[in-house]
Amino acid sequence: MIIAVIGIGLIGGSLAISLKQNGFADRILGVDHNEQHGLKAIELGIIDEVVDFEAGIRQADLIILATPVNVIVRILPDVLDLVEDQIVVDVGSTKERITSSVQGHVRRGRFVATHPMAGTEYSGPEAAIPDLFGGKCTVIVDKEQSDPDALATVESMYDSLGMNIVYHQSHDHDIHTAYVSHISHISSFALALTVLEKEKNEKRIFELAGGGFSSTVRLAKSNPETWVPIFEQNRDYVLDVLDEHINTISRFRTLLIKKDFESFYKLIQQANQIRRIVN
Amino acid sequence: MIIAVIGIGLIGGSLAISLKQNGFADRILGVDHNEQHGLKAIELGIIDEVVDFEAGIRQADLIILATPVNVIVRILPDVLDLVEDQIVVDVGSTKERITSSVQGHVRRGRFVATHPMAGTEYSGPEAAIPDLFGGKCTVIVDKEQSDPDALATVESMYDSLGMNIVYHQSHDHDIHTAYVSHISHISSFALALTVLEKEKNEKRIFELAGGGFSSTVRLAKSNPETWVPIFEQNRDYVLDVLDEHINTISRFRTLLIKKDFESFYKLIQQANQIRRIVN
Repeated sequence: MIIAVIGIGLIGGSLAISLKQNGFADRILGVDHNEQHGLKAIELGIIDEVVDFEAGIRQADLIILATPVNVIVRILPDVLDLVEDQIVVDVGSTKERITSSVQGHVRRGRFVATHPMAGTEYSGPEAAIPDLFGGKCTVIVDKEQSDPDALATVESMYDSLGMNIVYHQSHDHDIHTAYVSHISHISSFALALTVLEKEKNEKRIFELAGGGFSSTVRLAKSNPETWVPIFEQNRDYVLDVLDEHINTISRFRTLLIKKDFESFYKLIQQANQIRRIVN
Repeated sequence: MIIAVIGIGLIGGSLAISLKQNGFADRILGVDHNEQHGLKAIELGIIDEVVDFEAGIRQADLIILATPVNVIVRILPDVLDLVEDQIVVDVGSTKERITSSVQGHVRRGRFVATHPMAGTEYSGPEAAIPDLFGGKCTVIVDKEQSDPDALATVESMYDSLGMNIVYHQSHDHDIHTAYVSHISHISSFALALTVLEKEKNEKRIFELAGGGFSSTVRLAKSNPETWVPIFEQNRDYVLDVLDEHINTISRFRTLLIKKDFESFYKLIQQANQIRRIVN
């Protein structure tokens, strides 16, 4: 199978590496508006060839959209205008805006909307790594809107990567990711900013930063080009979660002010229930 | 050297393992108010013998206080009452209250106040692991108040573990750890609670939780017995940081409400500066 990857960054590049390695793809075409990314991806052996947008779509059997989500929304209708029986899949972190952009499109059935829940805090083709996806979960949304053969091909692609496939409606996906992914990023950004601001007066503050701090601010290294469009598209749900999160933090604050350490203890015990979820 | 470890949990137990392994200790005596912890520590080969509080202090050359910080404050004066030329070191996460508890004590010089910046989110003797400390940073505070020989012995203990020693005043230590350790915990607890609360209505929400979420909530598994006394002792500094952190999160919220994604982008770029600190 010939696969075109549009957007050769962390996710697109890592997919290219794994799908070539496991034999799912015979040939990988790369499309990227950034010429340096294309050259770098060839140099790193991630893709076989750089082609332009239209050539990528015409020549490929499967087209993977792995750009930032604002670009996916913009190009997806054009991609569907160009395809005949090829299959199009996106890997964006939001789903409602993306699926809405081709609602009612005559070729909607050729498109499968997905979100592989894997990544790192790095970006660009240099960030692409093998084995990013194995054992992780991928979401396919609104599967009833995809043609059965397109859906089956995309399912077999994720199977070949060793991913666990779950099915959602795009609406539920966006609410859930606001909770388990998007808010974590804002929390990390804010924590990093708070400590960086303090560093202006307390030069030695990072001397004591250990594993706990690193773990909590890891996501603060994530790049704005990827993340701002996600927050923009998922704004309403993220705002709801952010309000709840601020309320929860404020509960800890109130208990500290009142020196009510008994309730503080109980609140931590409740938070400890997360052990059930996270190993 | 004979070492008594008072409080055989994650930190005390891990110190016992490493100091025995590297030959710094010839024999490890364990003291713990929880009988099960003592038996477990012997079964696991972490300590050589369980002794009572007074026997531990009389028989040991070096006494390590590794209990929760409220217990350290309570027992440290008693420990100094009992020592002659032995050396006492604590490993608590707060320092002002602990050092104040023996300010002016006739044996103050025998005590070295420290904080090895290492740990995991687990607790108890079963959580003790080898190699917890190598390459990490340890803080020694108010070193001028310790006798030179006591200080030198504690320094050589941390050297033997491969730790980088930094020196602070207890006041600065407590401010800095509020920023780079204590607030990370509250942020994690709050994030865990926010999502756990949502799970009551959205059963499938954790299906999509991936590496980013796990990393940000890892510390939410930390136990209240250790952490509530830390927040209690460091309350004033933690409150200051918490207010700043809530303000910072609220800046993201305001930008989302105003749909000012240009400023949102710039704020993320500022947060990205954390790359300078955290690898």
